[in-house]
Amino acid sequence: MRYLITFAYDGSKYNGYQKQPNEKTIQEEIEKALTRINHNTEVHISASGRTDAGVHANNQKAHFDLEESMDVERLKYSLNKMIPKDIYVKKVEEVGMDFHARFNVAYKEYVYKINMGEYNPIEKDYVLQLGKKLDVVEIERALKYIEGTHNFKAFTKASDMKESYERTIIQTDLLRDHKNFNQICLVFLGTGFMRYMVRNLVGTLIEIGEGKRRSEDIIAILNSEDRKEAGKTAPSCGLYLNDVIYR
Amino acid sequence: MRYLITFAYDGSKYNGYQKQPNEKTIQEEIEKALTRINHNTEVHISASGRTDAGVHANNQKAHFDLEESMDVERLKYSLNKMIPKDIYVKKVEEVGMDFHARFNVAYKEYVYKINMGEYNPIEKDYVLQLGKKLDVVEIERALKYIEGTHNFKAFTKASDMKESYERTIIQTDLLRDHKNFNQICLVFLGTGFMRYMVRNLVGTLIEIGEGKRRSEDIIAILNSEDRKEAGKTAPSCGLYLNDVIYR
Repeated sequence: MRYLITFAYDGSKYNGYQKQPNEKTIQEEIEKALTRINHNTEVHISASGRTDAGVHANNQKAHFDLEESMDVERLKYSLNKMIPKDIYVKKVEEVGMDFHARFNVAYKEYVYKINMGEYNPIEKDYVLQLGKKLDVVEIERALKYIEGTHNFKAFTKASDMKESYERTIIQTDLLRDHKNFNQICLVFLGTGFMRYMVRNLVGTLIEIGEGKRRSEDIIAILNSEDRKEAGKTAPSCGLYLNDVIYR
Repeated sequence: MRYLITFAYDGSKYNGYQKQPNEKTIQEEIEKALTRINHNTEVHISASGRTDAGVHANNQKAHFDLEESMDVERLKYSLNKMIPKDIYVKKVEEVGMDFHARFNVAYKEYVYKINMGEYNPIEKDYVLQLGKKLDVVEIERALKYIEGTHNFKAFTKASDMKESYERTIIQTDLLRDHKNFNQICLVFLGTGFMRYMVRNLVGTLIEIGEGKRRSEDIIAILNSEDRKEAGKTAPSCGLYLNDVIYR
């Protein structure tokens, strides 16, 4: 039987999603629990993709196989009893054996939260504490240049070699909080994201919002296909994998 | 020179505000930094009151004395450079030598955040994850019985002996979030609060919201002056010292 789980996590105390020797990771915590549930026969989970150290997820998805069939509500209950309290399985569902949590992804949505106001120690691991006002109208203009199908090589980790750097950003948004005008949230819905791509886009958008670059510079940066042309990588704390949508 | 500081903190990694041997406390972190700034001559700070382990503050206040006069902006900058990132000094101001951060308090405001919806691992240390719907109208009725001057002995730590248990709750409120109907925030503005008083009030209000008690039971609980008549102590994670107002 193949199962798909939807889960949320606070990434601030983890060294990223993906399992690594001697590091605390989300994947390892879930696999440990599933292995116990599976009578100590090892269970491997395949997620929609990794998230880096400090990055959070509202709705990450992963699949895994169990020999025996199990009630999905019971599986959800048992998993949540065993995993740490900063990870939570929201849903368990049965899927066909041809389903793959990574290969079947249609879109992913990331959000990035920024506090332009005074430093807030209570949010320091959850919202980028930028501490300066940004020109949000100029950022909104820049987001329009990001939408569409482009070669995003300039916005990915320089050392990552890919067959293709072409990705499609379906939709972007800049949301404001009506209770707190200093808080903004950038939304990116796309067919795929390469490593550091959202954080490099956000880092560049912040420089645009600071007036150091102009919105139309996005075109030249995309065309350069050169990481050095884009802005700094924004910190991981503001980033959330918000949703994964399957075909 | 006497200085008043306004500061915020994430209480989740501290064993409360007040200094204790071998425990990580907010007071100790600030005093250590001030002592360094004061050329290693010990500085003691007096806060508006303590907060318990896990309780947060949006605006806690404390005073301290320095022999030398210092620029308030520079003092704020130096303090924030030295204290841990989960504490933040928002303001430093000069006050008269007769000012006392505890004795001059006119009102204090506490807020308590509750998530009635699905467990959210990202908020687990910042919002009580109750996971069930409450009858908010009945809670609002109960809050009206709490307002006013009463003997709050039934709502304080049973072993705490006080000269008087009479306190005045000036105003209460139940705020809802228009983006997230599952999140509520209880507000208490009063002349003074005894230990566990807000958390015992909230624990009782939750039982009222669950239908286990009725709003008018507040009257009988207050009259009993017996801790055993009130509800459970609500967890510390949802509680914030929101403001301290001086005469």
